[in-house]
Amino acid sequence: MAKPPDLTPLRLAEDRLELLDQRKLPGAEEWVVCRDADEVARAIEEMVVRGAPAIGIAAAQGLYLGCRRLGARGRDAAARDRIRSRLAGTRPTARNLFWALERMEGAARDHGHLPSGEFLRRLQAEAEAIRQEDVTANRALAQHGEQLVAAGARILTHCNAGALATGGYGTALGVVRRAHEVGKGPVVLACETRPLLQGARLTAWELARDGIPVTLITDGMAAHFMGRQQVDVVLVGADRIAANGDTANKVGTYGLAMLAAAHGIPFLVAAPTSTLDAALADGAGVVIEHRHPAEVLSVAGIRVAPAGVPAANPAFDVTPHRYISAIITERGVHRPPFGRSLAGE
Amino acid sequence: MAKPPDLTPLRLAEDRLELLDQRKLPGAEEWVVCRDADEVARAIEEMVVRGAPAIGIAAAQGLYLGCRRLGARGRDAAARDRIRSRLAGTRPTARNLFWALERMEGAARDHGHLPSGEFLRRLQAEAEAIRQEDVTANRALAQHGEQLVAAGARILTHCNAGALATGGYGTALGVVRRAHEVGKGPVVLACETRPLLQGARLTAWELARDGIPVTLITDGMAAHFMGRQQVDVVLVGADRIAANGDTANKVGTYGLAMLAAAHGIPFLVAAPTSTLDAALADGAGVVIEHRHPAEVLSVAGIRVAPAGVPAANPAFDVTPHRYISAIITERGVHRPPFGRSLAGE
Repeated sequence: MAKPPDLTPLRLAEDRLELLDQRKLPGAEEWVVCRDADEVARAIEEMVVRGAPAIGIAAAQGLYLGCRRLGARGRDAAARDRIRSRLAGTRPTARNLFWALERMEGAARDHGHLPSGEFLRRLQAEAEAIRQEDVTANRALAQHGEQLVAAGARILTHCNAGALATGGYGTALGVVRRAHEVGKGPVVLACETRPLLQGARLTAWELARDGIPVTLITDGMAAHFMGRQQVDVVLVGADRIAANGDTANKVGTYGLAMLAAAHGIPFLVAAPTSTLDAALADGAGVVIEHRHPAEVLSVAGIRVAPAGVPAANPAFDVTPHRYISAIITERGVHRPPFGRSLAGE
Repeated sequence: MAKPPDLTPLRLAEDRLELLDQRKLPGAEEWVVCRDADEVARAIEEMVVRGAPAIGIAAAQGLYLGCRRLGARGRDAAARDRIRSRLAGTRPTARNLFWALERMEGAARDHGHLPSGEFLRRLQAEAEAIRQEDVTANRALAQHGEQLVAAGARILTHCNAGALATGGYGTALGVVRRAHEVGKGPVVLACETRPLLQGARLTAWELARDGIPVTLITDGMAAHFMGRQQVDVVLVGADRIAANGDTANKVGTYGLAMLAAAHGIPFLVAAPTSTLDAALADGAGVVIEHRHPAEVLSVAGIRVAPAGVPAANPAFDVTPHRYISAIITERGVHRPPFGRSLAGE
């Protein structure tokens, strides 16, 4: 069977952003077309696109498309501020969103003196560079991370930190992919990741697509398999990493990290440096997004809970650095204590 | 608002067993009628009825109905053995199933000399006694357990250890119910309990029915709320408790117990003595039921995972006694070390 083409959830063009609709996977592969910043913002809010690095790329292209819509006024910082606020207000937790918008704003300031057409070409190039650099970073961090994975390793992962969460290749799943490519034969235990089932719908789909063995479990089963010595390493992505290594990631990650520590299983975080938040001393300052309770009360659009019962829906949690064995970025592998090591990046 | 009538998932009659179909709650309240042992066995396998004590009661009535179908041959031990094997073969983990069948067989042996009609009346009475004693035991254990619950306690529970899992009133939820009745105002955080969502569908439903505040969370959120100091106690039921206190319960329980221990939160198990397995030295000998992967691959009948991806589906896990703060039975509160204390029962 021929290797399928590399998977990317975003296609950037001169007049649009095309997003693989992740709400519909694995049932359907449909692309949503966004032609201005507001359409991109709504796609981020509604999780057509998700995953911290992918959100950052989408927002970068969104800022470009917003400036394009403004024409010559795109060179006006105040006009851009409104676009940037709209995009920055979509989801609070992923560092990459703010990082990408700051980088785009920097490019806009650098090129604000240029004629409008040239200014826009520079912004478009910057968004595309962010996308390409993300793929390059993922491939580099995967090479570093793969060295932490033993042959035949049984890797437990949570949510989707794959090609679908990034410009391509993936962070945690990039490490898995690389281990697979070099013949280590990793096998994956994927937590389904309620409420939105990114593990069941996305991780299982993209690993199966690449022929990497994956078995699905519910989130509550992870400890059972750890206790039965069927997990060699836990490997996740990140949405925001504080200066001391505290890591915000999909809700459920914190519990997995504690359980891994209690079982003596290494717990690895894989993320590009665009996920690092050097200005954040520790995880206490992370803004946790609380999403609509309907995501918990329903599954795949079917109401499962009785009418009138409330639900809580924090989308992320924070894993204290003491439970993290290593943080893998494109620059290398960071070991505890993380503070000084991460500050170097 | 008038208090609703006491909830029971089983109605025992002379010629049948009526079961509240727990697959259909909370959307519909439908009763399934079983008129012989095989129909009861299928209802247990298909989880029309579930929860260790309720399964035991159903099996007891199933044995009675099987003997009734046999007529005078019901007094023949070999004929009964076939019925007992069918019922015992439905689900391996819940101790109460085997306990109830052994008790019914004891009654059958005691009364085998009686005329067929009288023999059957005694078996029917035994099954009804098992049901009534279960409710009585739950009310007693709830009184013991309530004393471990502080006013306003925020109680995290998993799966459904309520009226629906028993003859009535419930084990873990019996403790909650009692704390509510005596005015302690407990509030419940219910883990939804994938794959079959007993927390979302059953626990939320029966607590809301009684006006006890309940908030639904996904299984992966438990650690987050523990870490945010929003959980005062974890309280669960049990399917089988070994002589040393190791406890088999719905998959996910083991992880919750470890997480509770790591956060310094008491972890309480509530179960009638019919759940104790004195012949089992420790949890290593518990037979874990593995159910069909479709339960994980689908939610509420909707396929969520891609075609061809396998899933694991252990229905239970085993919590080592060292993570358990107390085991509450109808006879009182057992504290570690559990061995001698449980042996006294």
